[in-house]
Amino acid sequence: MKILVVGSVAYDAVETPAGKRESQLGGAATYFSVAASYFTEVGMIGVVGDDFDPADIAMLESHDIDISGLIKADGKTFRWTGEYMEDINTAVTLDTQLNVFGSFEPELSDAHANAPYLFLANIDPNLQLKVLDAMANRPKMVANDTMNLWIDIAKPALSELISKVDALLINEEEAKQLTGEDHLPDAASAITGMGPSSTVIKRGEYGATLFGENFSFAAPAYPLERVVDPTGAGDSFAGGFMGYLASVDKVDQESLRTAAIVGSTMASFAVEDFGLDRTKNLTHSDIAERFEAFVDLTRFNPLT
Amino acid sequence: MKILVVGSVAYDAVETPAGKRESQLGGAATYFSVAASYFTEVGMIGVVGDDFDPADIAMLESHDIDISGLIKADGKTFRWTGEYMEDINTAVTLDTQLNVFGSFEPELSDAHANAPYLFLANIDPNLQLKVLDAMANRPKMVANDTMNLWIDIAKPALSELISKVDALLINEEEAKQLTGEDHLPDAASAITGMGPSSTVIKRGEYGATLFGENFSFAAPAYPLERVVDPTGAGDSFAGGFMGYLASVDKVDQESLRTAAIVGSTMASFAVEDFGLDRTKNLTHSDIAERFEAFVDLTRFNPLT
Repeated sequence: MKILVVGSVAYDAVETPAGKRESQLGGAATYFSVAASYFTEVGMIGVVGDDFDPADIAMLESHDIDISGLIKADGKTFRWTGEYMEDINTAVTLDTQLNVFGSFEPELSDAHANAPYLFLANIDPNLQLKVLDAMANRPKMVANDTMNLWIDIAKPALSELISKVDALLINEEEAKQLTGEDHLPDAASAITGMGPSSTVIKRGEYGATLFGENFSFAAPAYPLERVVDPTGAGDSFAGGFMGYLASVDKVDQESLRTAAIVGSTMASFAVEDFGLDRTKNLTHSDIAERFEAFVDLTRFNPLT
Repeated sequence: MKILVVGSVAYDAVETPAGKRESQLGGAATYFSVAASYFTEVGMIGVVGDDFDPADIAMLESHDIDISGLIKADGKTFRWTGEYMEDINTAVTLDTQLNVFGSFEPELSDAHANAPYLFLANIDPNLQLKVLDAMANRPKMVANDTMNLWIDIAKPALSELISKVDALLINEEEAKQLTGEDHLPDAASAITGMGPSSTVIKRGEYGATLFGENFSFAAPAYPLERVVDPTGAGDSFAGGFMGYLASVDKVDQESLRTAAIVGSTMASFAVEDFGLDRTKNLTHSDIAERFEAFVDLTRFNPLT
């Protein structure tokens, strides 16, 4: 396995201006894995309840995702209820039921512990640290995501984790909250000071900005006619980003730039339909075509 | 003269987190003209009061700007007082004194009326229409800007104007207000339905998106370490955008793309210091260097 991801697997109840779904497969590890699966071999560490649908297992397996680390526990799968009604860019959480996720203790097999790429999706930074410590060798690249909750209640563990990763992928608002800086380049530079050589600031419909070692790179969002469900866009970005890097097995500047566009490509698919409905049914030519649309969206000629 | 611009010339009192200026040269036509002057010959139509500083006349003349249309009237120059304290992206207007601008009646000489490029900066759409009607020939390209005030109180005249221009340059919020569409591509498409073949949506620190005939182009904002004063960024963008188009004398897709980056380049200089302090002192190599920084900010390799 080239990439190991640890994070949530969930059933989400979601309402957007485009409609409502009572219970759709979601969770950061799920979105990440399916997006990354188009580029490389992915293994998931997570937990589901005894209500987990065999059809969802079959979907993950059909993407050659290694789910040997997806533990089935007694109880119900993690459930998130949210809506994007006032502002399509901002999720309002209506309810969170941790269920089996509340006592989640990641356990790694040898195959997991030897993965060269590691993505620590948004969970308690103490668990993220535990997974990083459990790796047999320091992976070639470790990236993580986080959220406002952990900045509020687990800042020391989060700061320790960030000091140990190569890349932090974080929302703009959370980057500002984490660093206390209002201005984006200042926030990115404060994060660099915490440890990571790359910081990806996710800006929703405004795209993402990558701050690397002595360069920055602006990836736009694709101006889609219709955004159906923004859930999972950030994790799909991460899946495309890490999936591409693992596939070329390089983390240099040039690869990071292309990876950010691959991430934006996968995020653009994620929001086109509810949950994983679009992302799970892609072909490689769909991906290549959308990547080319990003080329067209951003290309310009020299100044004459 | 290649470009004629009609719009405000002002003295602004501005406060930003970087400091405060009691009275600095501003106004849409001023920012536009100085930015465009690095690319082509510009003529301004506007009005100033008898308090207008001869040093400001000298500065405009030093940029070879034709100010034969800048009328001096009895009274004081238009004065805008604003601040950007809570949010550097949003100007809060504290006071507006129209002064001589209140009875402004644009008058065009033959040289003005034959300009092949026309920019109608943000003023009463009835005046914008009057200038367009006064042109001897239909210019090769006409673009305009507007603001929430005119959408509120002069929508019919504004809609008539928009039906006659080639390009509308407008802030994201105002594009949404104008069209009643919450989603950017929908707003752009509604504007296209009103007439213009190109719509440039200005998104402040998120850059600008150009919606043209069968293409869209995303121009990022430059991630500056320090934004000192956002006043005039949009008009400096317009000046770079139109100035470049007039200099190559083409308005095809390829030229529009490059022009949007030239616009972003000029906007990035505008915000680096108060008022015109940075923009008025540029060299052509400063501009070429910043343009190259945009190339570096956006370039990426094909998917392998």
